[in-house]
Amino acid sequence: MFSKNNHLLEIFLKSKEKLIKKEGLEENVIYNGLNCGSMVLLGNINHKNVEPLLIGQPAKIKINANIGTSPLICKIDEEMEKLKTAEQAGADTYMDLSTGGDLDEIRKNMMSLSHMPIGTVPIYSAAKKWQDMGKSMDNLDMEYVFEEIEYQAESGVDYMTIHTGLDIEAVKYAYEYRLTGIVSRGGAMIANYMLKNNKENPLLKDFERILKIAKKYNVTLSLGDGLRPGSLKDAGDFAQNKEVLNLSKQVLQARCYGVQVMVEGPGHVPLNKISSQIKTMKDLIHNAPLYVLGPLAIDNGAGYDHISAAIGASMAVLAGADFLCYVTPAEHLTLPDINDVYQGIKASQIAAAAAEVALGRKSVINQQENMSRARNNLDWENMEKYAIDSNIVKERRKEFKDEKECAMCGKFCSMKVNR
Amino acid sequence: MFSKNNHLLEIFLKSKEKLIKKEGLEENVIYNGLNCGSMVLLGNINHKNVEPLLIGQPAKIKINANIGTSPLICKIDEEMEKLKTAEQAGADTYMDLSTGGDLDEIRKNMMSLSHMPIGTVPIYSAAKKWQDMGKSMDNLDMEYVFEEIEYQAESGVDYMTIHTGLDIEAVKYAYEYRLTGIVSRGGAMIANYMLKNNKENPLLKDFERILKIAKKYNVTLSLGDGLRPGSLKDAGDFAQNKEVLNLSKQVLQARCYGVQVMVEGPGHVPLNKISSQIKTMKDLIHNAPLYVLGPLAIDNGAGYDHISAAIGASMAVLAGADFLCYVTPAEHLTLPDINDVYQGIKASQIAAAAAEVALGRKSVINQQENMSRARNNLDWENMEKYAIDSNIVKERRKEFKDEKECAMCGKFCSMKVNR
Repeated sequence: MFSKNNHLLEIFLKSKEKLIKKEGLEENVIYNGLNCGSMVLLGNINHKNVEPLLIGQPAKIKINANIGTSPLICKIDEEMEKLKTAEQAGADTYMDLSTGGDLDEIRKNMMSLSHMPIGTVPIYSAAKKWQDMGKSMDNLDMEYVFEEIEYQAESGVDYMTIHTGLDIEAVKYAYEYRLTGIVSRGGAMIANYMLKNNKENPLLKDFERILKIAKKYNVTLSLGDGLRPGSLKDAGDFAQNKEVLNLSKQVLQARCYGVQVMVEGPGHVPLNKISSQIKTMKDLIHNAPLYVLGPLAIDNGAGYDHISAAIGASMAVLAGADFLCYVTPAEHLTLPDINDVYQGIKASQIAAAAAEVALGRKSVINQQENMSRARNNLDWENMEKYAIDSNIVKERRKEFKDEKECAMCGKFCSMKVNR
Repeated sequence: MFSKNNHLLEIFLKSKEKLIKKEGLEENVIYNGLNCGSMVLLGNINHKNVEPLLIGQPAKIKINANIGTSPLICKIDEEMEKLKTAEQAGADTYMDLSTGGDLDEIRKNMMSLSHMPIGTVPIYSAAKKWQDMGKSMDNLDMEYVFEEIEYQAESGVDYMTIHTGLDIEAVKYAYEYRLTGIVSRGGAMIANYMLKNNKENPLLKDFERILKIAKKYNVTLSLGDGLRPGSLKDAGDFAQNKEVLNLSKQVLQARCYGVQVMVEGPGHVPLNKISSQIKTMKDLIHNAPLYVLGPLAIDNGAGYDHISAAIGASMAVLAGADFLCYVTPAEHLTLPDINDVYQGIKASQIAAAAAEVALGRKSVINQQENMSRARNNLDWENMEKYAIDSNIVKERRKEFKDEKECAMCGKFCSMKVNR
């Protein structure tokens, strides 16, 4: 990869000391990971204030927060608060998925507010702008989508979800045989275009055009799972796997071109199939970083999908997933509010930690041991320090902060007896 | 079992029609499960208003809510509210773990308020009453503990956690080599007695005395995991496994005696070891119903331990666990409040459903499909109906209840495009 991507080499050399320290990995592990594509280093050359971020095991599992306005809820200030909340809670990246208000202005504001890498789904902006011009999505001009991709790349977006893997055969299968058709918004937009215009997916056909743009700015492509299953019933079907096959080839094409690439997927997956799906995907995508949303292990957890997702994500990371898109309690119901954002990050951190312990990651194991040692010593200060969320430990202890033991066991505390 | 336990046969015959309907199992599956001990039917002959409950796969996974006062927080009315909340949220049983106030009065009130089977840990009450008499736990009279067991059995308690598996060798190991010693309150009390008095565990030595009491009232014994690991570091160690070995023999003893028996365990377990631990335990305990608290897949999730537990519980059920003790967000920090109780039940339901789908349980799979069909049809009424929590679906949709789509995607809803 380095021989074909000078921007990457430049960013790597500039940030490697920080990366080595942050990830606890040796330089050659990072170098080799980036070179072969099992890792990516996010950082658009035009995103001046970005803190480059490494994704790909054995680097630490990274967490993304989706934020942004919707057609029904468009409060810019609140989105900025969400961004701050996500970062403080421990997010590594954010995606601006805004579909309401002045999209370019919102993105600019977000990028000035945070050093985290930013991701987008350019077809959302294209669709929004297209409709704002009074035009129907049935007549979407794909040229307009490519222009939006280039415009966002130039403006500094670090990674982009582009649905390059849908093809007409898979789309038709999805609409004919599935319980929940296509549940990816971007996927549905592309599928609609394909069916209404009887055309193959232009993002698949003109993949090289996307590669050219991505290379120019060191945009990392996140090949989208436009056909991810939206219900357990649809999990692992023809449509999902056909898309993955297309992405398999595109990963190699991107690497040959010198473009960094991740792959997204899957969506709803029964617990007993997560491990095999993830491992099969990782093989097919040549060990490129895998970016998962969930997977959700049940369909009917609305209101608690951060928990369903944490179950699935822990299994997925154990099987090889590298990058978690948070799922919030608002999923399937409404736009997340600030508390949802916070809860989504915390649930993702728990899922990641559970898997990282199981994978033998030393820094995470040490944190568990430090927490348990503090617990055994009834040392609340260090429990706060090593907890996933110091604030909540303090908050829930508030009323009884002068007690040695917690208010559940009190004088019957087993830790006290331990002494 | 039936040939040795007339009470069980009586309760089975009285409740079998309801059980067949509720569990969706054929009569002979339930009969054989109970007869060989892979299932238990909770119902003390003196608990007049109890609704007998079947535990043991392939019966539905059951969920227990721990409630009760503590030495620091003793609000009886609130505990009654928690009991109602737990039942409305979908709990199948509750354990009264009160250690503050008039324990017998509290338990009586709870039993008059709910038809759910009740569980207790009699040594808690014995310890509390002992200390109320101004006596030290170091001098605990074990005769007093046996009397409390008999008293509670006679008063109608359906199942009891009794820590019969600790032995002196395992206790010494735990205190010598573990990071977090003994974290079970009951286990620590017994261990303290053993070490201070240099005696073997009387509950192990006089196990037959417990069997005699249990048989008289059809109390189901829940053989306690007094040496469950309290940190990932201690998971799967000598102490834990020595206790399981003792319980292995006691399960057979109980069955020979005609006493129904479950086994509890384990505590904190790394994600990659949950499946093997559960399967090994199920073998050793001769497929008796396994009652798990968590397991927690991380140590440092305080404030979110319902999520850590949901991750572990889903894996545990997939591997054979039958009965989930909820873990609430208050775990490790304070006594759960009413909201914690609710959250704990919901997280457990999600974990159970995720595993039951994976295990091929038809009724749970049907519920997922019905939810997804409703979602695909943007049919919010049926989404409420099939969701784990109808209330939260309604609540979070409130502001936009007249919209067809949810407020995240609005007009860009992929389900709409699907049509």
